[in-house]
Amino acid sequence: MVEIKFSVDRLEKFCYGVFHNAGVPSENARAVASSLIQADLRGVDSHGVVRTMIYIERLRKKMIDPLAEPKIVSESESTVLIDGQNNFGAVVGLKALDVAMDRAKRYGSSIVGVRASNHFGTCAFYALKAIQKGLILIVMSNASQTMPPTGGIRPFIGTNPFAVGIPAGSEIPFILDMATSVVARGKLIVAAQKDKSIPLGWAIDKHGKPTTNAVEGLEGAVLPVGGAKGYGISMFIDILSGILTNAGFGKYVNNMYENWDEPQNVGHFFIAIDINRFMPIELFKERMDQYIQEIKAEPKASGVKEILIPGEIEHRLSEERKNSGIELPKNVVKELEQIGKLYGIEL
Amino acid sequence: MVEIKFSVDRLEKFCYGVFHNAGVPSENARAVASSLIQADLRGVDSHGVVRTMIYIERLRKKMIDPLAEPKIVSESESTVLIDGQNNFGAVVGLKALDVAMDRAKRYGSSIVGVRASNHFGTCAFYALKAIQKGLILIVMSNASQTMPPTGGIRPFIGTNPFAVGIPAGSEIPFILDMATSVVARGKLIVAAQKDKSIPLGWAIDKHGKPTTNAVEGLEGAVLPVGGAKGYGISMFIDILSGILTNAGFGKYVNNMYENWDEPQNVGHFFIAIDINRFMPIELFKERMDQYIQEIKAEPKASGVKEILIPGEIEHRLSEERKNSGIELPKNVVKELEQIGKLYGIEL
Repeated sequence: MVEIKFSVDRLEKFCYGVFHNAGVPSENARAVASSLIQADLRGVDSHGVVRTMIYIERLRKKMIDPLAEPKIVSESESTVLIDGQNNFGAVVGLKALDVAMDRAKRYGSSIVGVRASNHFGTCAFYALKAIQKGLILIVMSNASQTMPPTGGIRPFIGTNPFAVGIPAGSEIPFILDMATSVVARGKLIVAAQKDKSIPLGWAIDKHGKPTTNAVEGLEGAVLPVGGAKGYGISMFIDILSGILTNAGFGKYVNNMYENWDEPQNVGHFFIAIDINRFMPIELFKERMDQYIQEIKAEPKASGVKEILIPGEIEHRLSEERKNSGIELPKNVVKELEQIGKLYGIEL
Repeated sequence: MVEIKFSVDRLEKFCYGVFHNAGVPSENARAVASSLIQADLRGVDSHGVVRTMIYIERLRKKMIDPLAEPKIVSESESTVLIDGQNNFGAVVGLKALDVAMDRAKRYGSSIVGVRASNHFGTCAFYALKAIQKGLILIVMSNASQTMPPTGGIRPFIGTNPFAVGIPAGSEIPFILDMATSVVARGKLIVAAQKDKSIPLGWAIDKHGKPTTNAVEGLEGAVLPVGGAKGYGISMFIDILSGILTNAGFGKYVNNMYENWDEPQNVGHFFIAIDINRFMPIELFKERMDQYIQEIKAEPKASGVKEILIPGEIEHRLSEERKNSGIELPKNVVKELEQIGKLYGIEL
């Protein structure tokens, strides 16, 4: 697969330009572009500029309202419920994050629930911003159906992701950002394209039988991480993000790629914590550094080069790509060029 | 293994009596006894009355201070930091839960961190109480070292557990209570006793090699659920419960069975949410019922009798044991009888 390299700046300007020319107000176009670029920077290519096309498609089909103003529908000191009014997930998510961070600074911690939103990119996008403000953030989102309940045979819950972002001092921050499936569905797609088998435990076929055949797995469902444990985690993310907020849940979270009649009605859930209410942040950061250094100094299994902490690989990739640029597969470049032509923006 | 059945009431009175006669004030003895009994009721026998002996041992060796008053060391509207003053975990945990619930009712949500505590029983114990008050509770605790970091070969993090408790209406409440290991260490102990092998993926030997030998696994370490995902979850629980609260973390959480020089310094972390701030609780419960009913009505894989939700098995066991009593293995009964003799309480 041939890859072509772009500077981060150029790619971000391109994305921004496309969304802006497609009718998205400047600030919102910047939010969406930045969420895509940051995913590419961190190596989460599945959530990067490759999503420009589907976002634009949903915009064109009026499944997203780029002019809507997300609004607070109820609030107390430390809880806020936001209706995203069906704007882009990144726009709604950033608004919710701002509210969550502001409340946490004022009252110590805060919980912000969100409904009527869309796919909001990676959870790490929000975690990183909270970390920069010296806050701890737990963020989660539900998603359309891709995984069966334990014992089931067809998708009922999403691979509902969550992230936990925690600042450190001289060490890199802790960012755990994970889907609740064993592996991303994208890995099955790649295996299917290459006609390769997949390990047992990744997926079931459409009859609910464990399969090593990637094509059968795609027709069936990917499995929750750790069996009933991942099922339970995915379920509580659905409940907090979807049921508590009056967003969609289970089958009522519409599939971004398949449902062209209704908005997605995705729900998100943010928990922000002001570290200073527990101990001076400088002391906290020292303790984090000590923890990370101790864990990284642990004896390693044979063949293991280094013990990593969550977010470390992504952090390194991000630093590297900021300097050397982002490589995109040729087919993605081609797709972006087509979109660019449509909106008069050159890649 | 011969089992002997006791009524719940009788067993609880026995435990209460033992702790009380061992110098634990009445209310605190009730808290500890009730946390043990509830674990047995729900079928989590590893956290039930079988722990009476180790709790009493730590009390006798002055590793726990049953007279200490857990105190609030810092607070804002929605955050509180509590120093458990090294009382029993259940005593400290219930105090923290009360504070968390009160704050959530007042400000919408709350976060309570706890340090200088001890093993606090099952997380579900607290989740259930919050559910009874119409609150959502996320509760977690760190624990002494039992799992390696991904790529490591020896224990560094605990099988740090967490629970999420969420009320429903006519359906049973959602209670996910899980350790972050693939399986409980107790399962390895049972396999070793029976000279049985364990599945690959449960544990590593002391050289960091995957093993199917239960004895080797016990000498080594149990593994995090879902590989790097479980490692990351366990780590953030350690950070929130231990680092942020100034409790122990990593190797500084002392092992209840092995360290007789210092208190455990366990940390806990509670997040309480008042549902009514998001929607009327009656509506929320209806939505929960619908969700649970829909998930349970899903088509089942062959051989599967029923799709279960987290906490369902434990709920049924609990109802059953409330009526029919709790069966204890003969060796546990023997141990309890010995303790009873020591404190003048008849089993």
